[in-house]
Order: sequence, then structure tokens, then C-alpha cells
Amino acid sequence: MKSRAAVAFAPGQSLQIVEIDVEPPRKGEVLVRITHTGVCHTDAFTLSGDDPEGLFPVVLGHEGAGVVVEIGEGVTSVKPGDHVIPLYTAECGECLFCKSGKTNLCVAVRDTQGKGVMPDGTTRFSYNGQPIYHYMGCSTFSEYTVVAQVSLARISPDANPEHVCLLGCGVTTGLGAVKNTAKVQEGDTVAVFGLGGIGLAVIQGAKLAKASRILAIDTNPSKFELARTFGATDFLNPNDFGKPIQQVIVDLTGWGVDHSFECIGNTNVMRAALESAHRGWGQSIVIGVAGAGQEISTRPFQLVTGRRWLGTAFGGVKGRSELPGMVEDAMTGKINLGPFVTHPKPLPEINEAFDLMHEGKSIRTVIHY
Amino acid sequence: MKSRAAVAFAPGQSLQIVEIDVEPPRKGEVLVRITHTGVCHTDAFTLSGDDPEGLFPVVLGHEGAGVVVEIGEGVTSVKPGDHVIPLYTAECGECLFCKSGKTNLCVAVRDTQGKGVMPDGTTRFSYNGQPIYHYMGCSTFSEYTVVAQVSLARISPDANPEHVCLLGCGVTTGLGAVKNTAKVQEGDTVAVFGLGGIGLAVIQGAKLAKASRILAIDTNPSKFELARTFGATDFLNPNDFGKPIQQVIVDLTGWGVDHSFECIGNTNVMRAALESAHRGWGQSIVIGVAGAGQEISTRPFQLVTGRRWLGTAFGGVKGRSELPGMVEDAMTGKINLGPFVTHPKPLPEINEAFDLMHEGKSIRTVIHY
Repeated sequence: MKSRAAVAFAPGQSLQIVEIDVEPPRKGEVLVRITHTGVCHTDAFTLSGDDPEGLFPVVLGHEGAGVVVEIGEGVTSVKPGDHVIPLYTAECGECLFCKSGKTNLCVAVRDTQGKGVMPDGTTRFSYNGQPIYHYMGCSTFSEYTVVAQVSLARISPDANPEHVCLLGCGVTTGLGAVKNTAKVQEGDTVAVFGLGGIGLAVIQGAKLAKASRILAIDTNPSKFELARTFGATDFLNPNDFGKPIQQVIVDLTGWGVDHSFECIGNTNVMRAALESAHRGWGQSIVIGVAGAGQEISTRPFQLVTGRRWLGTAFGGVKGRSELPGMVEDAMTGKINLGPFVTHPKPLPEINEAFDLMHEGKSIRTVIHY
Repeated sequence: MKSRAAVAFAPGQSLQIVEIDVEPPRKGEVLVRITHTGVCHTDAFTLSGDDPEGLFPVVLGHEGAGVVVEIGEGVTSVKPGDHVIPLYTAECGECLFCKSGKTNLCVAVRDTQGKGVMPDGTTRFSYNGQPIYHYMGCSTFSEYTVVAQVSLARISPDANPEHVCLLGCGVTTGLGAVKNTAKVQEGDTVAVFGLGGIGLAVIQGAKLAKASRILAIDTNPSKFELARTFGATDFLNPNDFGKPIQQVIVDLTGWGVDHSFECIGNTNVMRAALESAHRGWGQSIVIGVAGAGQEISTRPFQLVTGRRWLGTAFGGVKGRSELPGMVEDAMTGKINLGPFVTHPKPLPEINEAFDLMHEGKSIRTVIHY
């Protein structure tokens, strides 16, 4: 079938809106009509060419919501008409990782997903007869996409797709990092580095967890007001100080914060976040994705004196098990998604989403088909 | 009073056995007659001059056992005749850290201890009228030493001091890192880097925790036999492989080990230990003390895919609360200390202890006065 899509034909170029060919779903696969998709920094990172695993041409996009159109052989967990969120972190329920009860890092489709193909090693997308790669197992920048059934969370049909598509990546990552990875407790102190979509979601999660103090850190002070509405209590621009921001935070809090979160992908900030953590028990969670080959470092004394360095992917959330409940929370207002959607736009304007992101003007542009 | 002591008059020089002057204990202080002391790598590190916080002249030693001789004003927790182990990690029970329930890193005497003096800012040691610094709040290389009462664990008088002095540092650090910091569970897999006293104690702790597989890693294969007697199941010399040891371990175990422990103080090994940890949940505990200014590094992807980087000091053990029970465990044989004491020696032979350590021939030399 034909599908409108925003295709990345080469790194560093704008996406092109074209009509691609989409093959029917094969065994274990599902054809989904995407109705909405967020545009995330990870899409921009791969598009830039800096992602060493980036493949082109490709249909990017991994933060979507849609409706099942057709199922392949053996698919039992969804049926046509079901509302779904595609998952870049699958949940098969059967692999070593899913069965461990300790992580959400399912490996069922990991190898082929990283190679831009479906589990059988082939792609369902083509343009003028040339194959186009899948992306993160989702490819939500095509109106019709094919995903593995283990990569689909079935959600309430009554949810607002323009909002809950954001649970496909950024907001879930931030909320999950607080709840699953850091396990923030009532009264804890929190520092959030980077006030994009993930950072704001971390602030919302910390507020939900009843953190006593939430420090919001960004070099762009225009982000502070929205951070305040989500619950941040202190606002720090590292450029305002003549000393490292970690020293500012330790001085401000006495011994550092109970939990810090790096939501940018900058390895220097990752170090600052760790060194902002409380002596004895503070922990720092790496959420941002750093550029290829970049490394984090610190003095081991930071760890020996009780700080802990952790990371999280998709907030430790098991998508098929947990996303339906998070969608319910969004419907009741417990999770507040509206303020994240700063720029709703139709598909033809998708390249503007990247411009707005790079200029720091948007939290999320959500594309509707 | 006069006391025989092994004094480090300058960095890089042998200790000199001299008779020093020891002042009586002041308020909150206790005079202890040390009967036995281990010689630990940390003593050697400071003696070498590489420790940027090292002060000279100094009475080193921090792994001792002894008997209370005299108490200063206000001391209520011990009385003359009590058997004690000096603690380089005090436990006051009243500071933010003691009260947190999350860490053993008491700050009651931290600042002055780091400056080589008692909490009132002065030293109790002198030689020919010149002051001599204290070390780690213990200074067990003097037959008579003065320590703060918050730095003394009162133990059973029936314990063997030649053995339980080792609970003052290395063995407790290793056992505690397994139990308190890593919280190793039955069936878990463990890798131990460095088979000195701490590494062997980690192995003993992992065996007590019923780990299913314990990998012992050292470039000195003569250590493997003792590691085997403590419970190690696999023995790896990194020099035997044409690839990084972390890759060897990941290949050997499938996805890495549940817990890895760095027991050397080498930042490259700290990285290898982290990268030997299991994708999704593996954690690595830094125990060794690195040289001044050295840093650890890794790709943040290691953390984002679920590995956790932690550290521990004194194994997370609260000395006054927990050491008495560990001494009981040593008396019943649950904790096996005998094999650690490879070289008992009288005080005049203390410099040989450093030679044996540097040559990799001893696990612990224990000095008796």
C-alpha cells in the first residue's frame, strides 16, 4: 500500500515528504496507522549524521500513537481497531531480561531493530523500488508503519492521541527514571539538568513523588517558567556562577541532592550531575544520549564516598505491561501531558519541528497526519 | 607516657622504631594499648608519598586490636580493660549521616581526622618534643595510641586479637561490600578484581551469600589457590588473553556478572570491572583507592543499558554497631580470618611487611607488640 511519509534520504538533509510503499505485515507483525507522532532529540541526533549506527534512507520517528489496521500471522495481542503506542523498547515477556524482573531491556528484536530491519531481516518500506530502513522498531514518521507485535502497547481508545503519543518516549522516560530507576521518596531532594521534554517530565515525576525540593538547571532561562508550573522550586543557570554548577548545588543544599538527572546527553553535565549528588547516598541517573565515542569520567572518590552512578532507558518502563496504566493516568489528569505539546503541526511542516527544537523554542512538536 | 612506635618520619623512607611520648586522653578520648595490627595497602600508599593528604612525621596503622587503658572525661561507651578495635570510620550516632540509616560515613571526627589531629585540633604524639601526626583516627603502629571514643568498637574479650584486628579494615571492607553495598543474593554471579586481603574477603563474602559463580581475577596466578579455598570457582589472569578482560568475562558468562568488585585501586581495572557487569542490572563496586588525581571513565551507554557504578568505604559497615557481631562470627568460625594472616611478625620487623606486600608474597602481615 501507499503511505505518506517524511523520509530521511541522507544525513544532514531535511526530511522529504513522499509517498512510500509499505508491505503488509508478516508473521508476528502489525500494520499501524499512525495518527500522531512527537519529534524527539533522538530523531534529530540520527538525522544529523552523528549517530554512528544511523542508516539511510530511513523513516525516523519513535514517539507515536495510532490504530491497528492489519495483523500478520500469529499475532494475538492486538487486533484491527485497537489503539496502540509503538515501543522502541519491546517487551516479549520471554527473554532472559523480561523474565529477570530487574530490567525493561528486552532483547527479543534488539539485533534487527538496531540494523533498521524487521525481525526477519528485511524492510517493509520502499520508495521507487529501493528499500528504506526502519528506525528504533517504530518509524512513526510514516502514516502507515509495520512493527513487531512485541513492540506495541495496547491502550484505551478514549485517550487523546495528540497527548499520549508522548508516552512513547520522552515523558515516560522522565517519569520512569524518577519512579523505577531512582525510586524518589517523599521529602527527597532532586536536581534536573536540562529542561527539555525529558527534564520537565522528570520534574513532574519528582513532584508526583512528593520531592521536597526540585532544582531545575538550564543555560536557557526561558525554560524556567514551565519548569515552575511542573513543580520545580529552584532555578539555576550555570552561566550565572563563577564556579562549577556542582559546587553551587552542594553549597546550596549542604551536601548535595538525593537524586540528580542528566537529561541532555552532555558528558560534562553527566559529571556535574554525579558530583551534585549527596555524599553517602546520593545517586545520579544518566538519561541523555551522548555523542558517539564520548565518555564520562570522575574521580573514583566520588563513588567510594557513597555516590551512585546509574542510567536508564525508557525510564525502566516495560511498555506493554505499564504504558496502558500510564495512559489511564493521563486520562484522569494524574499525568499532565498538555503542556508538553507546545507546537502541534501537520506532517508537511515536520522540518520546522527540528528547527524549533534546535532553537530551544519548543518542548514538543506533535505531528498529526 | 612512653610508647614503642614505628614512625614514618618522611615519605618514601622506612619506618623507624622509636620510643615516642603519648599524652593522656582528653575529653571524649581513650588511651588504647594496641596488641596487634595488620599492615594494609593504604598505609603503604600514604608512606610512599603518593597520598596528597599524607602528613609527616606520622604514626601510621589503622587495622588494629587492643585493650582500653585509660578514658578521658565524658567517655561512657568503654572502660579500662575493654577489648576494642579502632575505627577509621567513626560512628557517632548523632550526625546527619549516622541518623540517615543510609550510610556509614559518619562526619563526627572527619575534618580533624583528615588533618592528622584529634578533634580538639592537637596531637597526642610527640618525639623529642616535636609533634607527630595521627593517622586515620587510629595510629595502630604505636603500642599506645589515643583515639576518639566514637572511633572504638567494643568487642568480646575472648576473641583472638591476631585475627580480629583484620576486621578493623580489609576483611570488613570486603565482607561488607558484598553484604551492605552490593547486597549479593543466592545464585548471583560475582567477579573479583585483585586477590589481596580485600579481594579474598569479597570472595569469602560472596561464598557466604551463596553466589553461584565467583570469578577471581589477578595478574599474579600464585594468588589463585588461596582464592579457591575461599570459594572462587573461576580463575582468570588478564595477561593470558588477547582481548580486554571485560570482554573475556562477558563471553564467559553470556552477558556479564551480576556484581563486580574492584579491589586494587587501579582506574583502568575499575572500568574493566564496570564493563564486566551484566547488561540490564549488573553493578560494579569500587573498593580500591586510586592514586591522586586519577579518574575513572566509561561510555555512558554502559549506564544507560542498566549497569550501575557504586563505591564503598569500610564495606558500608557501621563499626560500633556491627563489628561486635562480626567478631562473634569470627569466634564461631562463620567468618574465617586465619588464612589472611600469612605473616605474623614482631614490631621491629614491620618494614618487612611492606616488602612482602609489594612483592605480592603476603596477604596480611600482622604485627604483635
